Amino acid sequence: MNKIYADNAATTKMSRTAIDAMLPYMEEIWGNPSSLYEDGQKAAEALWSARERIAACIGAKPKEIYFTSGGSEADNQAIISAARLGASAGKRHIISSAFEHHAVLHTLEKLEKEGFTVELLDVHENGMVYPEQIAKAIREDTCLVTIMYANNEIGSIMPISEIGAVCRERRVLFHTDAVQAAGHLPLDVQREEIDLLSLSAHKFHGPKGIGALYAREGIRLTNLIEGGSQERGRRAGTENVPAIMGMAAALEEACRDMDIHRKKLTDLRNRLIEGLSRIPHSMLNGDPVNRLPGNVSFCFEGIEGESLLLLLDDRGICASSGSACTSGSLDPSHVLLAIGRPHETAHGSLRLTLSADNTEEEVTKILRVVPEVVAYLRNMSPLWKDIVSDRKEEKHGIIQ
Amino acid sequence: MNKIYADNAATTKMSRTAIDAMLPYMEEIWGNPSSLYEDGQKAAEALWSARERIAACIGAKPKEIYFTSGGSEADNQAIISAARLGASAGKRHIISSAFEHHAVLHTLEKLEKEGFTVELLDVHENGMVYPEQIAKAIREDTCLVTIMYANNEIGSIMPISEIGAVCRERRVLFHTDAVQAAGHLPLDVQREEIDLLSLSAHKFHGPKGIGALYAREGIRLTNLIEGGSQERGRRAGTENVPAIMGMAAALEEACRDMDIHRKKLTDLRNRLIEGLSRIPHSMLNGDPVNRLPGNVSFCFEGIEGESLLLLLDDRGICASSGSACTSGSLDPSHVLLAIGRPHETAHGSLRLTLSADNTEEEVTKILRVVPEVVAYLRNMSPLWKDIVSDRKEEKHGIIQ
Repeated sequence: MNKIYADNAATTKMSRTAIDAMLPYMEEIWGNPSSLYEDGQKAAEALWSARERIAACIGAKPKEIYFTSGGSEADNQAIISAARLGASAGKRHIISSAFEHHAVLHTLEKLEKEGFTVELLDVHENGMVYPEQIAKAIREDTCLVTIMYANNEIGSIMPISEIGAVCRERRVLFHTDAVQAAGHLPLDVQREEIDLLSLSAHKFHGPKGIGALYAREGIRLTNLIEGGSQERGRRAGTENVPAIMGMAAALEEACRDMDIHRKKLTDLRNRLIEGLSRIPHSMLNGDPVNRLPGNVSFCFEGIEGESLLLLLDDRGICASSGSACTSGSLDPSHVLLAIGRPHETAHGSLRLTLSADNTEEEVTKILRVVPEVVAYLRNMSPLWKDIVSDRKEEKHGIIQ
Repeated sequence: MNKIYADNAATTKMSRTAIDAMLPYMEEIWGNPSSLYEDGQKAAEALWSARERIAACIGAKPKEIYFTSGGSEADNQAIISAARLGASAGKRHIISSAFEHHAVLHTLEKLEKEGFTVELLDVHENGMVYPEQIAKAIREDTCLVTIMYANNEIGSIMPISEIGAVCRERRVLFHTDAVQAAGHLPLDVQREEIDLLSLSAHKFHGPKGIGALYAREGIRLTNLIEGGSQERGRRAGTENVPAIMGMAAALEEACRDMDIHRKKLTDLRNRLIEGLSRIPHSMLNGDPVNRLPGNVSFCFEGIEGESLLLLLDDRGICASSGSACTSGSLDPSHVLLAIGRPHETAHGSLRLTLSADNTEEEVTKILRVVPEVVAYLRNMSPLWKDIVSDRKEEKHGIIQ
């Protein structure tokens, strides 16, 4: 890609380290880790070492890590498992929030059809869910609280350790979708009192098609995929050893460089937020400070996000309006609606998500191009003309 | 690996073609296929072309191909989907066989707990399930027949088109786990009247962690993994584009070279079967002719399969006793029990599965080493001494 890639929340470029960690397991040590012979056992040892390294990055024990095909599968399995455990104790109430990823929300909808009661907490307009809301919502029959670590669209970071403490005190399982946080923020499942946590390698410069579910020791997972006895009998299918090695290498690298990258990304992000805030009738989505280092999310009144993205692409900037997973949909983002943006405004959203590969020059170009494109689109938009004339009338009305 | 690798049913070495097909999608065209910008759209186009190429290899339409994380997931999704469709029409009877892969059997057990009736057909001692058995077992309330294309342990190939014809005539959905067949035998879902078919890339020199489910147009799949709208809303999670490209390349290559490889493998296999049959008290498992080109499966009385494998490994031969997926288990193979092997005999099994990379010299070495190792183990085995002395007494008894 010769373009400016500013869509790292959708996927990231694999690091050379991650690719190099995969190749030997594609070319040389490719045996099935369940095989008894030496070449299978070498694969099994590599698998175990990857489990140890990934566990170490999030403060878990190796046997608490279950490899999955990605973040969505991990979310599904975590929630279904907690629901089954709950149901077996007569508890069928689940607490979540209105702006979770669809891998969480759609799994909860499935459980609702089975008779679970799902309570989606309101999200504050700054993109936050507070521990007090959780404490208030927990009932006798609550079996699970699932709140994302950081939002994939607007980047706001939840007070996870406080939420964890509330759940632990009230003896309710706590799952967090940490897909956007892992490799970008320091995670510690012990300290933060997290029971279940999902992560996805391709969000931190690892390979696609691989993720992990952390499940605290003693939590019995429900199988989504039945079959062989891989992953201690909880997830069938020949282990994807090359991808697992790539994930371990990528996560270690991301954790090693985290402080330096956070500093750099926060500076770039703040420049973008400051610059784009100068566009008239623009609104920053999410908290200005308490957000992912590389996340910039705006709504621009009077424009269509899709047209904005196409023109930006044409000018060499890869961005998105929100989640890549629902980009085919014409509905406005459920995340932006959850923080109170009106339908029309939510349609005019732009998400720029940076990685450490982005440069000051790229930010300068983005700050030049985005205001031009927004102005161009508004100039063509009958919607915008209506908004402006309505406002003028309003203003005159007030003055007169 | 410098050893003789004869465990290709467990996993295969990735072909250079498959690795080379993956790398550009790891290094260059790594965008998220759901993204609007050009680099995402390039990934989406590649994904579609892979779907077309894989569909063409099995006689399907591109939109009938759903990518999964592997064969186990595909089996699970196929069976759960057919069961849900059946239940909605009041049909809760499923027909399968006693020697299916655990990805099938364990999914069926789960459905039994939900109230489905599962009928596991007996397997003939030659490793076959016959269409007459299916025809006899189908009831008014049968919603699914799931019979594997070729058995992963003993290699016997089922009369799939005949079974397909019976199911189609009786209007019952037919699923086949073709994990061991795809890339090795010519598949045609139209001609063979297959409704649902599972395949796994790492069994035909493609990458691990990727597979596909073919579902005939009009069959509504049930989601195992909820979330984004990937795979036409039936399987959430960012598409594993590199692995999908590797799978498409590997399957095309395997289909292109199929005839040459089948001829070579059949010759090597027949030499092995002939040679190993000379070991006293050995039994070939599965049909001598109607079996996968590269599959050799024997039971040797009076030995433990695990000891045999360890000694073979020591002498440079990678083999297995049966399925890699259950190698940690001490139970004898359910496949060998299904074809009528007694418990003790089933413990002394050896599976050698060849690929086109194997050579005449390797077969010669295997034919030298296996009889030596079997004799050595029998010599050390109290079990074997008992068997031999029992037989002598029996013999004398008969003679006298």
